[in-house]
Amino acid sequence: MPFSLSEYRERIEKTKQLMEVEGVEVLLLTNPANMHYLSGYDGWSFYVHQALAVIMEEEQPLWIGRKQDANGAQLTTWLHTDHIIPYPDHYVHSHLKHPMDFVADILTQIGQGNRRIGVEMDAYYFTAQAFSRLKQGLPNARFQDSTLLVNRIRLIKSDTEIDYMKKAAKIVEKAMQTGLNTIAPGVRECDVAAAICHSQIGGTPEYGGDYPAIVPLLPSGERTSTPHLTWSDQVYKPSDTVILELAGCYRRYHSPLARTAVVGSSSSLVQELFEVVKEGLNVTLDAVKPGLTCEEVEAVWRQSIARKGLLKDSRLGYSVGLNYPPDWGEHTASLRAGDRTILQPNMTFHMIPGIWFDTYGVELSETFRVTETGCEVLASFPRELFQCPGGSLFHPLKESGA
Amino acid sequence: MPFSLSEYRERIEKTKQLMEVEGVEVLLLTNPANMHYLSGYDGWSFYVHQALAVIMEEEQPLWIGRKQDANGAQLTTWLHTDHIIPYPDHYVHSHLKHPMDFVADILTQIGQGNRRIGVEMDAYYFTAQAFSRLKQGLPNARFQDSTLLVNRIRLIKSDTEIDYMKKAAKIVEKAMQTGLNTIAPGVRECDVAAAICHSQIGGTPEYGGDYPAIVPLLPSGERTSTPHLTWSDQVYKPSDTVILELAGCYRRYHSPLARTAVVGSSSSLVQELFEVVKEGLNVTLDAVKPGLTCEEVEAVWRQSIARKGLLKDSRLGYSVGLNYPPDWGEHTASLRAGDRTILQPNMTFHMIPGIWFDTYGVELSETFRVTETGCEVLASFPRELFQCPGGSLFHPLKESGA
Repeated sequence: MPFSLSEYRERIEKTKQLMEVEGVEVLLLTNPANMHYLSGYDGWSFYVHQALAVIMEEEQPLWIGRKQDANGAQLTTWLHTDHIIPYPDHYVHSHLKHPMDFVADILTQIGQGNRRIGVEMDAYYFTAQAFSRLKQGLPNARFQDSTLLVNRIRLIKSDTEIDYMKKAAKIVEKAMQTGLNTIAPGVRECDVAAAICHSQIGGTPEYGGDYPAIVPLLPSGERTSTPHLTWSDQVYKPSDTVILELAGCYRRYHSPLARTAVVGSSSSLVQELFEVVKEGLNVTLDAVKPGLTCEEVEAVWRQSIARKGLLKDSRLGYSVGLNYPPDWGEHTASLRAGDRTILQPNMTFHMIPGIWFDTYGVELSETFRVTETGCEVLASFPRELFQCPGGSLFHPLKESGA
Repeated sequence: MPFSLSEYRERIEKTKQLMEVEGVEVLLLTNPANMHYLSGYDGWSFYVHQALAVIMEEEQPLWIGRKQDANGAQLTTWLHTDHIIPYPDHYVHSHLKHPMDFVADILTQIGQGNRRIGVEMDAYYFTAQAFSRLKQGLPNARFQDSTLLVNRIRLIKSDTEIDYMKKAAKIVEKAMQTGLNTIAPGVRECDVAAAICHSQIGGTPEYGGDYPAIVPLLPSGERTSTPHLTWSDQVYKPSDTVILELAGCYRRYHSPLARTAVVGSSSSLVQELFEVVKEGLNVTLDAVKPGLTCEEVEAVWRQSIARKGLLKDSRLGYSVGLNYPPDWGEHTASLRAGDRTILQPNMTFHMIPGIWFDTYGVELSETFRVTETGCEVLASFPRELFQCPGGSLFHPLKESGA
């Protein structure tokens, strides 16, 4: 188990407190990260419907999932066997039956069919059909939206969670260096991605890596005009710009990191944009401290780049930590105008000041923890535009003299 | 673009024919695989809401997604610029606005607000909230469930799709061999997973690999009692059983393959179970031919293992091909009792006769294409219980004499 039993019990306690406040008697979680957070459950089974039910009066939640995954629940959770409830395989990808029919039957059988049930309306894997079948199967229940109830608890990390994110940061340092060392003219993008993944999963000699919730985002050339492209089997060409956005992951906890590199020589446009982004990131990280709101942090960045005549119309960052594919973000606080979440110690964010123009873009990011007085950046990696081959820092003067 | 323009147009044509049959005037796709199938769109952006709208009277579908992904849509789809519609970033993970509000506004603006709209009710990423906001924003539309409309078209592959799956099969052969070569007493599971991922993504010297929709499933020891556990940083111990379920992926097309290995010597229980599974797989593959139903194929397997006193209560396999995380299955046909889908040439399945007991399990699988007369197994890999180190075939007699 990644955490002590007392830490799980504390999480359940906090969850029940929020349920009480919101008038939820049964919380039906389908977000795999929230299921993991409260129970420890860890398996790649979220491609079929499953749920964790927190019942106000029950000490332990119920895991309800596919029969062949029940042994996985036994092996990875702190729940007693009688709290692990398997559904038969004919519910899987069936046109006649739906796993949420089974969940509704179970809740009815244990006397929870007429309660106020919180569901995660906008969580991944809680489909429109899942909700429809649940409502049909529980006609006497009252449903309400509890999408971020557990996510809000996850905002502030325990010391063990911080330790895991620091381990993830060590992994991403290594993976980023591997990527920069591998990029070179004539090398295929897929071979760089392969080397990065090897490094992410192998981890360090002391501890291994888990799979990050997002694969390496590795656009190059014109594809740096957009952040979420992966890789091809084309080779790098001299003067390509390459964006590397990666995370290290340790026991499902992520530390993302983005850097930009150039193959051989870079255009002055990319260098100029990079300098603006770097200065903006540096001054904004310097400004972070508890008591500020997310929008106040973003305003520092906004003012910094406005002095260079730039505007970034996408958010500057978001809370980060525990997650499963397809996202490592936590969907609670975002560093952007309008978000008045107040920073508190042990909140963790990925600050990612990426700017994408029509034919090129630059990213430079850090994952940080809010401390008692400011912030602690988790990874230690130079904030520079890198020159590949070699992955060394880019020196414009040296380059122009070459 | 992975396919010719004419192949995309043919797919749109088939989609419109099914829309006609089902009385759908606007098909709003959110399944990333279906978006990709019809438009070519390929980016890791499905962690935010996005959609592809096929309108009966329009030649090209509309891509509607996050602004920073619009350049990605330009670069990866065959759509004209005016069919790529970006939403502003403040819709992302917001408590006030929802991307489906924007989608509803766009459909209204272009005169589609009062039509019969098909939505993928049970597709990943089409959340209960997405549907709720869509209904709210389109009060005059009539919604109906079109979850598998495009998936059904995907059941029969084109020659190019088969070629991609064969390329994926070459990749998985390599990745499986890498895994078997790496497993040994004292080696950490994460280092085996790292080597496998390197092999999956690096691909072959001729073509690179894409990211599979599922990471390597790599349970060992007692964890082989369940199929969907990944890896830890523990080391392999002599007599561990190890299950490897992997896919090769080429341009989003998958060829999965599962094998079982033993570290050093294996228990006779595992060997016995393996022989039953192997015989069942062999006779069932021999029986596959067009015209049979999925349940008739499964019955062959069922009878084979029943002769040894075994029953597998989970499905034997499923249609496979194009997909994105979290699944490489297509969710249409399953090889199981009750599924009367008739096999036709160029359907492709992953036949995965896994059997999991309380303390151990065995998997042995093949991905095959239905041919005009039978079936063609895509990967060429010995159907044996492997002995690691070395990944050589397991010879019980030799072993017992050692």
